[in-house]
Amino acid sequence: MTDEGVFNWPIRVYWEDTDAGGIVFYANYLKFFERARTEWLRSLGLQQQALRDETGGMFVVTDTQTRHHRPARLDDLLLVTTRLVELGRASMTLEQVAWLGQAADAARLCDSQIRIGWVTAQTMKPARIPATLIAKLHNA
Amino acid sequence: MTDEGVFNWPIRVYWEDTDAGGIVFYANYLKFFERARTEWLRSLGLQQQALRDETGGMFVVTDTQTRHHRPARLDDLLLVTTRLVELGRASMTLEQVAWLGQAADAARLCDSQIRIGWVTAQTMKPARIPATLIAKLHNA
Amino acid sequence: MTDEGVFNWPIRVYWEDTDAGGIVFYANYLKFFERARTEWLRSLGLQQQALRDETGGMFVVTDTQTRHHRPARLDDLLLVTTRLVELGRASMTLEQVAWLGQAADAARLCDSQIRIGWVTAQTMKPARIPATLIAKLHNA
Amino acid sequence: MTDEGVFNWPIRVYWEDTDAGGIVFYANYLKFFERARTEWLRSLGLQQQALRDETGGMFVVTDTQTRHHRPARLDDLLLVTTRLVELGRASMTLEQVAWLGQAADAARLCDSQIRIGWVTAQTMKPARIPATLIAKLHNA
Repeated sequence: MTDEGVFNWPIRVYWEDTDAGGIVFYANYLKFFERARTEWLRSLGLQQQALRDETGGMFVVTDTQTRHHRPARLDDLLLVTTRLVELGRASMTLEQVAWLGQAADAARLCDSQIRIGWVTAQTMKPARIPATLIAKLHNA
Repeated sequence: MTDEGVFNWPIRVYWEDTDAGGIVFYANYLKFFERARTEWLRSLGLQQQALRDETGGMFVVTDTQTRHHRPARLDDLLLVTTRLVELGRASMTLEQVAWLGQAADAARLCDSQIRIGWVTAQTMKPARIPATLIAKLHNA
Repeated sequence: MTDEGVFNWPIRVYWEDTDAGGIVFYANYLKFFERARTEWLRSLGLQQQALRDETGGMFVVTDTQTRHHRPARLDDLLLVTTRLVELGRASMTLEQVAWLGQAADAARLCDSQIRIGWVTAQTMKPARIPATLIAKLHNA
Repeated sequence: MTDEGVFNWPIRVYWEDTDAGGIVFYANYLKFFERARTEWLRSLGLQQQALRDETGGMFVVTDTQTRHHRPARLDDLLLVTTRLVELGRASMTLEQVAWLGQAADAARLCDSQIRIGWVTAQTMKPARIPATLIAKLHNA
């Protein structure tokens, strides 16, 4: 988790994230991953609301492949790692992992391969990612 | 609950609604109330997305007063009642109650007095509710 | 969608399901799929809270593969289909699809292949699905 | 917001928090307030999962009075303030406010008066707050 090109974001588990099984509800890992992606983009100088105002486009998730290894519980402090694994003209693919704890012996709770496309917000049609974004994403 | 002017809407409790306390998370009653309000509006011939497209306005909640009496749990089937208690030029007030069970001996779980204003969507400024809406709301 | 072995469940899109992009937030399809699974289990005579009280076990999602084809919007009425594609001793795999509209020309919005394991609730360790459940699932 | 006895907690607005109106969904302020309360308790040395394991009790919200003044939007950085306004034997009342920005000229977005009771988790019956908690809460 200290590799170059990996972005770290801490996430605390609150009541809202858990369910009556006593663990984090499965869909909520995708919320955690979205938060971490947003912060990863912000770390590259990209704010999504501003991007949309300026370019008329936005990112949308098109595919996810998610595996749940171990559950998280109330009050747990997770670390979410985000790594860009592929950058195309109209889409990119990220690998995101939720870990319990932040040390070297952190346990892998959940991981997801997430493909994100760029669309024109009005029409939701796929479009080429603007060149200025591509340049910034290459720095990731 | 069979009074005139009361709109009934059933809500099932799913995993997503519960928390690690084994009960419905407190904020989620406001989701249930919103669903029931939307269905109440629909029963009056009002669809909110269409309303916005046609009038440029939308309803927003400005005040809630909520009391939690008893908890709901996974798999419970609730009944949410909605009653218009005041209709003004720019706002209305609803009383909404979540009951467990639908019979005469239903238990009151949560109730809320909810004030809703009409705003111009672009500016979020308060505005007068369009006359055609007022007419339909008077039928409630 | 009228095939044998396919369970249908309608889902209405409310404000809570949408995001500032004007469409259903990607993680919320997994909420919709969970609701439809719960109703599918209920249609087979299986209530999850009762199951847990009786057997000490519960279902947890271990893998999802989800594709987002087209967005849903506020007030849309979706149909979620659920089909059991594999039943093992300790897990099962479902195919779930969210459609817009219920007619023959319904548009596929989102689909997911979802693997679900049975665990002992106390320990979260994988366990064999109780025989009485297996019998009921074979009827699906 | 720099008064003694006021606990500050920053909250970033993500996609999951917004709705198709382009603003934070009204119920989600109660999620923000819950997160801030949890961090306020943590700042006093109180972890809720540990509390429950040790005492068999937990906090539940019994009453909220919430006013929405101005909307928040995607990417906004809010500050939530939490102040204990009353501490009884079986309940406490908090005042929580969500502000936009953290400076002296921050705008008040939403405030809530929130009453929280202590219950025995098994029965959900009201109970006296354990003396060790009371002592820590008095330091707030």
